[in-house]
Amino acid sequence: MNEEKKQKKGLSRRDFMKATGGAAAVAGLAGGGLLLGPKTAGASEMPKKWDEEFDVVIIGSGFAGLAAAIEAKNAGSSAVILEKMRVPGGNSIINGGLLAGAGTPLQDKEGIKDSPEIMYEDTLKAGLHLNHPELVRTFCEKSAETIMWTVEYLGVEYQGRVTHLGGHAVPRSYFTTVSSGAGIVRPMLDKVKGLGLELRTQMYLDKLLKDEDGRVKGVKIRSGYVFPKRESGSEKVIKAKKAVILATGGFGYDIPFRTIQDPRLTADVDCTNQPGATAEGLIEALRLGATPVQISWIQLGPWASPDEKGLGIGPFFAISAAFTYGVVVDPATGQRFVNELADRKIRADAILKIGHPAIGLADEEGVKRVGRLDQMLERGVVKKFPTLDELAVAYKIDAAGLKETVAKYNAYLKKGVDEEFGRPFQKDAKAMEHPPFYAIRLWPKIHHTMGGIQINKEAQVIDLTHQPIKGLYGAGEVTGGVHGAVRLGSNATTECLVFGRIAGKKAAQEQPWG
Amino acid sequence: MNEEKKQKKGLSRRDFMKATGGAAAVAGLAGGGLLLGPKTAGASEMPKKWDEEFDVVIIGSGFAGLAAAIEAKNAGSSAVILEKMRVPGGNSIINGGLLAGAGTPLQDKEGIKDSPEIMYEDTLKAGLHLNHPELVRTFCEKSAETIMWTVEYLGVEYQGRVTHLGGHAVPRSYFTTVSSGAGIVRPMLDKVKGLGLELRTQMYLDKLLKDEDGRVKGVKIRSGYVFPKRESGSEKVIKAKKAVILATGGFGYDIPFRTIQDPRLTADVDCTNQPGATAEGLIEALRLGATPVQISWIQLGPWASPDEKGLGIGPFFAISAAFTYGVVVDPATGQRFVNELADRKIRADAILKIGHPAIGLADEEGVKRVGRLDQMLERGVVKKFPTLDELAVAYKIDAAGLKETVAKYNAYLKKGVDEEFGRPFQKDAKAMEHPPFYAIRLWPKIHHTMGGIQINKEAQVIDLTHQPIKGLYGAGEVTGGVHGAVRLGSNATTECLVFGRIAGKKAAQEQPWG
Repeated sequence: MNEEKKQKKGLSRRDFMKATGGAAAVAGLAGGGLLLGPKTAGASEMPKKWDEEFDVVIIGSGFAGLAAAIEAKNAGSSAVILEKMRVPGGNSIINGGLLAGAGTPLQDKEGIKDSPEIMYEDTLKAGLHLNHPELVRTFCEKSAETIMWTVEYLGVEYQGRVTHLGGHAVPRSYFTTVSSGAGIVRPMLDKVKGLGLELRTQMYLDKLLKDEDGRVKGVKIRSGYVFPKRESGSEKVIKAKKAVILATGGFGYDIPFRTIQDPRLTADVDCTNQPGATAEGLIEALRLGATPVQISWIQLGPWASPDEKGLGIGPFFAISAAFTYGVVVDPATGQRFVNELADRKIRADAILKIGHPAIGLADEEGVKRVGRLDQMLERGVVKKFPTLDELAVAYKIDAAGLKETVAKYNAYLKKGVDEEFGRPFQKDAKAMEHPPFYAIRLWPKIHHTMGGIQINKEAQVIDLTHQPIKGLYGAGEVTGGVHGAVRLGSNATTECLVFGRIAGKKAAQEQPWG
Repeated sequence: MNEEKKQKKGLSRRDFMKATGGAAAVAGLAGGGLLLGPKTAGASEMPKKWDEEFDVVIIGSGFAGLAAAIEAKNAGSSAVILEKMRVPGGNSIINGGLLAGAGTPLQDKEGIKDSPEIMYEDTLKAGLHLNHPELVRTFCEKSAETIMWTVEYLGVEYQGRVTHLGGHAVPRSYFTTVSSGAGIVRPMLDKVKGLGLELRTQMYLDKLLKDEDGRVKGVKIRSGYVFPKRESGSEKVIKAKKAVILATGGFGYDIPFRTIQDPRLTADVDCTNQPGATAEGLIEALRLGATPVQISWIQLGPWASPDEKGLGIGPFFAISAAFTYGVVVDPATGQRFVNELADRKIRADAILKIGHPAIGLADEEGVKRVGRLDQMLERGVVKKFPTLDELAVAYKIDAAGLKETVAKYNAYLKKGVDEEFGRPFQKDAKAMEHPPFYAIRLWPKIHHTMGGIQINKEAQVIDLTHQPIKGLYGAGEVTGGVHGAVRLGSNATTECLVFGRIAGKKAAQEQPWG
């Protein structure tokens, strides 16, 4: 509070009006409250005695939390990672293992021209320009460097070429050899161990402890927590001498909270996340007065199949075959109905609009880049047919219509122009004429929550008075603003790593409070 | 807190899981916090002495606040209305004076079949089904009754027929004879006076005073406040023995807050609201832990003209003539490009997409229902032309193209089917062939903020633990959920009156705390 007051005094009224956007801004400021304390939202009494102390306390052990911990440690701070589930890794360990970067060696190798500016434009276009521009800029500018950090520092192994995901102007997504985020999380966990960092599971964030002076000084947790038993475990207080970093992820699995934001997303809609993707970290930050940003924008994955639970493995077929080397059709007509490489919202909305699952298909040439195809066939999420006719029968598609659609696609591919939907083609795509054919049913699932708490480009959490909350950083899906209305595939992994690393470095630079 | 604890004890674990939506819900609950107080977000010390006391303290003097005050008083409570600006009425007094209702006498008179169910479907369709269904249901079911209350109890005077606004399946909007919300606000102000209610202006809400027990017990205000001087006036504390009702309106004029939610909406985008439409009431509720709902959905008005400031008067021409009895064209092509009666978002997005102002036009027959036409012509926001050729020259439209568009419109009207955009026609519409012609330039302006704090159908404000905040009610634009993603024209007036009245009645039923 003293510092805030000093800052205000240092500015003339004119400067202050300018800095905060004028008259309306001043009227919009909370604060004041000198008569009746506490001034700061969500302040708690500080414990007389802390059970433990660290320079930096990190909540969550996905990409963002792990990146923050590694950087904080490398900057000379002690740090602890607290994870509420039994296993570390959050959603990151089950994510698709793709991360976007502009201007990378793999792009150079293939002669793909790309830049942070192009990535910025793609991200804003998909985000319907609701994105916070300064966050997107930071994210794009650091994307290639961050991928190289995962290669050089973490030793992550990637496939030999970049993938072209929907909504990206060019192929720019690195893809782990294991086709999963585990390919990044595991090396991070090794590094955490190697650096002597502590990672504790079954630690539930009960409260962020913010002092009357407005600084977050520690956390109250429940140690030995057993998800989802709210009252399990025992209470402990951990002092954060420098800062707390909130990296608690999204709330895709939090049915009450998500239905407040989007009442369509009842328990009947499936979700690709791990069950721990609930809102309590976000809610706790809101209780402290963090500014909510675009929380009602919840992403549905267009590549999900109703024939398996959760994310499953079908999406790899959809992404690496049907959307890129095949087609997606409405079984009622046998026709394509959307650019298979449009952004996720366009595709998910298009499938919802036809009112029944779409069929994604590819031929033997088209499935060459699909890992784990045998497993998909075994599970029945992808099916195999000797001919298009048999495929058509299985899904009750008009066979003549389907064959016409494939013929049209082959003709567009030859011309290099998709005359119907403007979809870009892969350089190595071949005409769909090599049996057998493979197909998947597609129906959207909740995948990502774009909104969250406001941060600035230093990863500081911003409160309702437009000021950083001292001692509190945020990174990853718990924050809002990078993706705007619609997130592009593989942008989240990069976002988590970029802002997790920033949060860790900045937190390490804070002056300890005691 | 005691009551919440008792409630929890009264439920078996199974019931509790069921009531809160299962495992994810429990994990998502905030609360606990027994070790380190205060439990409740944003609690303050209570003043030793209050300057004044009322049963019900109402913040804001637009439709919602005035309706709440009237009902609280009629239910036997003392009440005060606190307004921060110099004049009462907020945005309501400058609004368009249209309010939607299903199943009204004016509809019956014209044989228009309507029902709360049809209105519900229209509202959800426009809202992209993000609306909170139970709020929409309450709103629609009470719409006709509320209009009749304005007629019978307030003595509001309406035009003799209902207006058909975009997105509504049928004509259902009552329109004040003065073509302004003032036609409702003024009778409400008279009633407020007649009931002996106090309405005080220049009273700034500095703080909602929430006690440690979680109940809002009063407000700290700045009396003699001069907008927008944050530190003007002197501090006072007013006790609310029963409840505080937040009816502070939207934040369309709050540049810093609105750009966090939608970064496109910088100071360069004009706004139809009065300058007091800032976010501090909303922010103060969020500080107390109210749940944010869909705050990033901000509505642009498609009927706004760049040739006048604020809402202006041009929208009446757009709504009562160009959209209903005329056409809207892209001057670059002379063609129509959108259903002129689609919802606001579709129309505003369509105009933004063409990248320059659209031209709305109507002929002499089409402007018959436009009030204040002379004033529009005088101001130059609407222009008059003897022929379509001259109109085309003035706006640099290809004259042949424009005349073809009008001929097509006339043909569709004759058939009764708009073959291009599916726009419904007015029953009394005539072919556009009666000179002179009138035209307006159209470019969207910020108009309404759909999101806000969560309320239930009793108008109680809901906190982040999914529980009502005791002693706090909300109504009108400061709340979210009724309109979902996109608000239909004239729904807001009804919403404010419906939930304002509910809030006033329910607040009056609260047990006084002291």
